[in-house]
Amino acid sequence: MRRAVYAYLERSGKRLRPAVLLFSCGAVGGDEAKAIPAAAGVELFHTWTLVHDDLIDHDDTRRGGPSIHAMGRGLAETELGLGSEQAVDYGGTLSILAGDVQQGWTVCLFAELASRGVPAEVVLSLITRLESHVINAVIGGELLDVQYSRTPIDRLDEAAVLEMLRLKTGSLLEFAAMAGAMIGLGTGDVTHPTVEAIGRFALHCGTAFQLQDDLLGLLGDERTLGKPVGSDIREGKRTTLICYAFGRATPVQRRFLSGVLGNPRAGDADVAKAVDLLESVGAVRHTRDLAKGHIDQAIPCLERLAASESKELLLAWAEFMIRRQV
Amino acid sequence: MRRAVYAYLERSGKRLRPAVLLFSCGAVGGDEAKAIPAAAGVELFHTWTLVHDDLIDHDDTRRGGPSIHAMGRGLAETELGLGSEQAVDYGGTLSILAGDVQQGWTVCLFAELASRGVPAEVVLSLITRLESHVINAVIGGELLDVQYSRTPIDRLDEAAVLEMLRLKTGSLLEFAAMAGAMIGLGTGDVTHPTVEAIGRFALHCGTAFQLQDDLLGLLGDERTLGKPVGSDIREGKRTTLICYAFGRATPVQRRFLSGVLGNPRAGDADVAKAVDLLESVGAVRHTRDLAKGHIDQAIPCLERLAASESKELLLAWAEFMIRRQV
Repeated sequence: MRRAVYAYLERSGKRLRPAVLLFSCGAVGGDEAKAIPAAAGVELFHTWTLVHDDLIDHDDTRRGGPSIHAMGRGLAETELGLGSEQAVDYGGTLSILAGDVQQGWTVCLFAELASRGVPAEVVLSLITRLESHVINAVIGGELLDVQYSRTPIDRLDEAAVLEMLRLKTGSLLEFAAMAGAMIGLGTGDVTHPTVEAIGRFALHCGTAFQLQDDLLGLLGDERTLGKPVGSDIREGKRTTLICYAFGRATPVQRRFLSGVLGNPRAGDADVAKAVDLLESVGAVRHTRDLAKGHIDQAIPCLERLAASESKELLLAWAEFMIRRQV
Repeated sequence: MRRAVYAYLERSGKRLRPAVLLFSCGAVGGDEAKAIPAAAGVELFHTWTLVHDDLIDHDDTRRGGPSIHAMGRGLAETELGLGSEQAVDYGGTLSILAGDVQQGWTVCLFAELASRGVPAEVVLSLITRLESHVINAVIGGELLDVQYSRTPIDRLDEAAVLEMLRLKTGSLLEFAAMAGAMIGLGTGDVTHPTVEAIGRFALHCGTAFQLQDDLLGLLGDERTLGKPVGSDIREGKRTTLICYAFGRATPVQRRFLSGVLGNPRAGDADVAKAVDLLESVGAVRHTRDLAKGHIDQAIPCLERLAASESKELLLAWAEFMIRRQV
């Protein structure tokens, strides 16, 4: 269990959420050292949602290693000598329980803020926001993701996909930035104008991040990403790329795409052809423009903040969303 | 999702945890009204652990209705028209995510105590205790339960089974009683002598409760229990009854028990014969004595409390543990 709880944390990740939290705290003039347990907390929150999502989505790799359920399944086979069906079960059990423990630990990290001098009402406001609003959004997004993956592509539109991204990825980044600002300002008020503005900034960045993720899932490098390229195609992942392409493709192209998307047995040649098709109909350009547009909307949200090193870091963080290749 | 989150709560349960929390608050002279969000919180904590455990243990019924994963599987088949494998998957997803939302909601209920006048440091102490110590104990117990169910019975002893019960059931009851006392006394100190004593009381009662549960799982009435009698036998549940019987049975009896325990296809006649065997070797009497012994140890823990109606309710609650038939 200990190995399962720590595994994802010991692998290198991008640490986007701790970064935006600490930069936001600094950008409002706060003491970043006070916010460190919250920075660890948002990373751990993200981690437990990954652990459960990987089980739900049957993803066997994460951050260049086995996902928790795959790790548990392997242990069950090699160390406990269980048969294949029982080993799958054991992996699932380990993943469910490890995620549950991590969710609890997340809350404890936030509670620890009080011992660093963050006022108790700020701490309780953060915990309540995270464990109600944020959890409902993230899990609502994951549920939409699961439902959309079973909805015919021609019945999904871009707005639905963007809403799913906002919930699944944007809402935690929004919270991370708000939490940093709230700790920095010493307020428990989630409607404080600076808190709201910095939250909106991170929400736009989150959407851009996820759009870039979809682009990298199509065009990126397997070794640097730590997950197989083309898996988004074989899984039939519903992205703005796919929505756009379906809207523009000829009937013949649509029929081809329908045969490859969500087909785990699709050959490499067909996957490569699908990627080419998405580029040739302009879907790649469209999604790049969408991502750029969100960063363009994010940046003015920081206008009210005085110039500072932390503000510069926030701006660089925003640019990273659409420049990154990992 | 809403239906999944509320389903167990809308069915009648014993509400043991809220009861001991409120009685404990009253018994130390506190205002029970202040403690109501915590009472709801411990029930909801128990509920999310049941939702995840039912998935892990493949239990399709709970409190006289379908468990969440079984409910989701049914919905997926009838309303979404999914095939059987996909429907199982959908049920699992719903159960994982519903439990996660409930865990978050649990924490929010505790955070709400602050608005009822419970000091913030008491609230943070309760949240930290619940989300670290208690979660680790409950989940450690569930993991032992899963591991023991795959361990040959002759390699398990009674002490191991009792330790599993202490973790899986006792630790949350202990917390509920401690939380009531802490709210009543207005202290965040989990080592306060009254808090410790009342926690010990509930821990003993929890073990007695679980022993009685094992007795009812063997001898109880399916209609009042809301789960099939004999399922403990077919599942091969590791109980003190089984440990005791294995220690006393003849080689022939052991061979018979080994063929029935954990055999989902065991016939009704063989299950009934196994029950008779557990009675005839004295296992039923032994487990009854164990349960009674824990109640006898629980009661003196309340000595330091002044006489009150709440104290009487705590004593009646303790007696209920071993008198109950549901």
